[in-house]
Amino acid sequence: MSLKNCTISVFGLGLIGGSLAWKLRRDGLVQDVAGWSRNPETVRRAMEAGMIGRGCVSAEECAALGDVLVLAVPIRSMEEVSLKIRSAARPDVRAVFDLASTKTDVGRKLAPIWGRCYAGFHPMAGKERGGLENADPDLFSEAVCAVVPFETTDPSVTALAEELAEALGGRALPTDAAVHDAAAGCVSHLPVLLAASLALLAGRELEKNPLVPLLAAGGFRDTTRVAGGPPWLGADMTVTNGEQVKRLAREYKAILNGLLGATPGELEALLEQASAVRERMFAGKKRWAGEKR
Amino acid sequence: MSLKNCTISVFGLGLIGGSLAWKLRRDGLVQDVAGWSRNPETVRRAMEAGMIGRGCVSAEECAALGDVLVLAVPIRSMEEVSLKIRSAARPDVRAVFDLASTKTDVGRKLAPIWGRCYAGFHPMAGKERGGLENADPDLFSEAVCAVVPFETTDPSVTALAEELAEALGGRALPTDAAVHDAAAGCVSHLPVLLAASLALLAGRELEKNPLVPLLAAGGFRDTTRVAGGPPWLGADMTVTNGEQVKRLAREYKAILNGLLGATPGELEALLEQASAVRERMFAGKKRWAGEKR
Repeated sequence: MSLKNCTISVFGLGLIGGSLAWKLRRDGLVQDVAGWSRNPETVRRAMEAGMIGRGCVSAEECAALGDVLVLAVPIRSMEEVSLKIRSAARPDVRAVFDLASTKTDVGRKLAPIWGRCYAGFHPMAGKERGGLENADPDLFSEAVCAVVPFETTDPSVTALAEELAEALGGRALPTDAAVHDAAAGCVSHLPVLLAASLALLAGRELEKNPLVPLLAAGGFRDTTRVAGGPPWLGADMTVTNGEQVKRLAREYKAILNGLLGATPGELEALLEQASAVRERMFAGKKRWAGEKR
Repeated sequence: MSLKNCTISVFGLGLIGGSLAWKLRRDGLVQDVAGWSRNPETVRRAMEAGMIGRGCVSAEECAALGDVLVLAVPIRSMEEVSLKIRSAARPDVRAVFDLASTKTDVGRKLAPIWGRCYAGFHPMAGKERGGLENADPDLFSEAVCAVVPFETTDPSVTALAEELAEALGGRALPTDAAVHDAAAGCVSHLPVLLAASLALLAGRELEKNPLVPLLAAGGFRDTTRVAGGPPWLGADMTVTNGEQVKRLAREYKAILNGLLGATPGELEALLEQASAVRERMFAGKKRWAGEKR
């Protein structure tokens, strides 16, 4: 049974859940898309916009419809929603994927609930503003989608997750939870705290210096951009990937101290190196994407 | 004598000097634009592209032509170039402006050399890539241009700097060097070190985790963007605004530690606050720009 013949049930119709549902339905990639949100008004709007084919009044109803269940609720609600819908899910449910941006902690909670049919799935895509109103069926275009099987995961479920990544227009990247969380901690979770710290510093400074907002331009805007995301998401990522985030923050502070204590010549060399790392990061990703094609 | 009747001599034809020369010449805002670069090939290219009307083989030749001298060389070269051209400059030179992104240290060095005709000028504009090849006559459109008179500065020179800001399509912001450096340290100089530290951290992590580049997406790209700028510029800004940058870095680390040690609820509240500061920053700048119009 391929994705094409499945009804996909999406729990949580925010930016990510809404975009995923919309893409699958718009392009006829699945048999049907059912959707549920804690807020009935969100379900109504998703139906109205044609993002989902079936709007559900309860999570249980949504679970009963799905061959594949996609959990796109906040990380903090993954376990609660799973426990709520477990008995309503069909005995022949093909797969359950969580879209959480951290994997180890979520997997530890969900694997015992769902067993063989469960795997982690994390599409690396986002926008400055969340919510269904910002959903975009092309959000996952060329996005890396981490596919994270756990010890309990059946290989057919991992294969289906890879199929889902391709269906979304993204690129499947099979990995394990710990490796995922260490990498995502570095490129995604810690940056939220770094950006927020800079914004908070600016907030303090502007109390005593009216030039602070006036001199802020593209550099400040970009460096703090991820601090504009949903606070609950930043908090959930930090809390559920706390060990990695704390380790990375320690190393980050040591590197920053190194820059602050460097001689002018050393500093320039380190900034040169930082610029080269960026190039290397983007080139590495491009190369991998080229090989995937 | 207004800008319209002046010949402007631009020293240094990189992104900023080249863009400024090009804008003034293209829109006929001055009588003529003379240009000099340490690299004769750069002068040739600027002439060829029509960015300058007179290409100079020496800094002294360029100085002798100008009613207004604009120093767009790296911060580290401001004093050396000033000493070199001082005696070649015309006795009736109207104004000398440095475009450095730090002001206190540069002013301390240049004010004794130039006296009454000297003021600081800092257009808050840039691009990820520098150099004449990225020059853009519209780079300063709506950009805040800090106008920084020193104790020695004649009021007519400050007025001419404000005229220059308007001519460039920007918005003049009169201020003093210390206030400028504290604000720019927060929104521009420290962010370069923060972005570079994150890039360097990623560089270390990718040695042991191949997922690091693959999971990097828009968030990492934006948070580290300013680390892609010229290393000499980042080093010069840090060195010549060292006191402010170090003070701000101390406060930054304390704020970051606060986020790392917060309870989930506190963390969410702090992230909410960070997001609100960003909005407040952009709204404050927009309001000021509206009042200027």
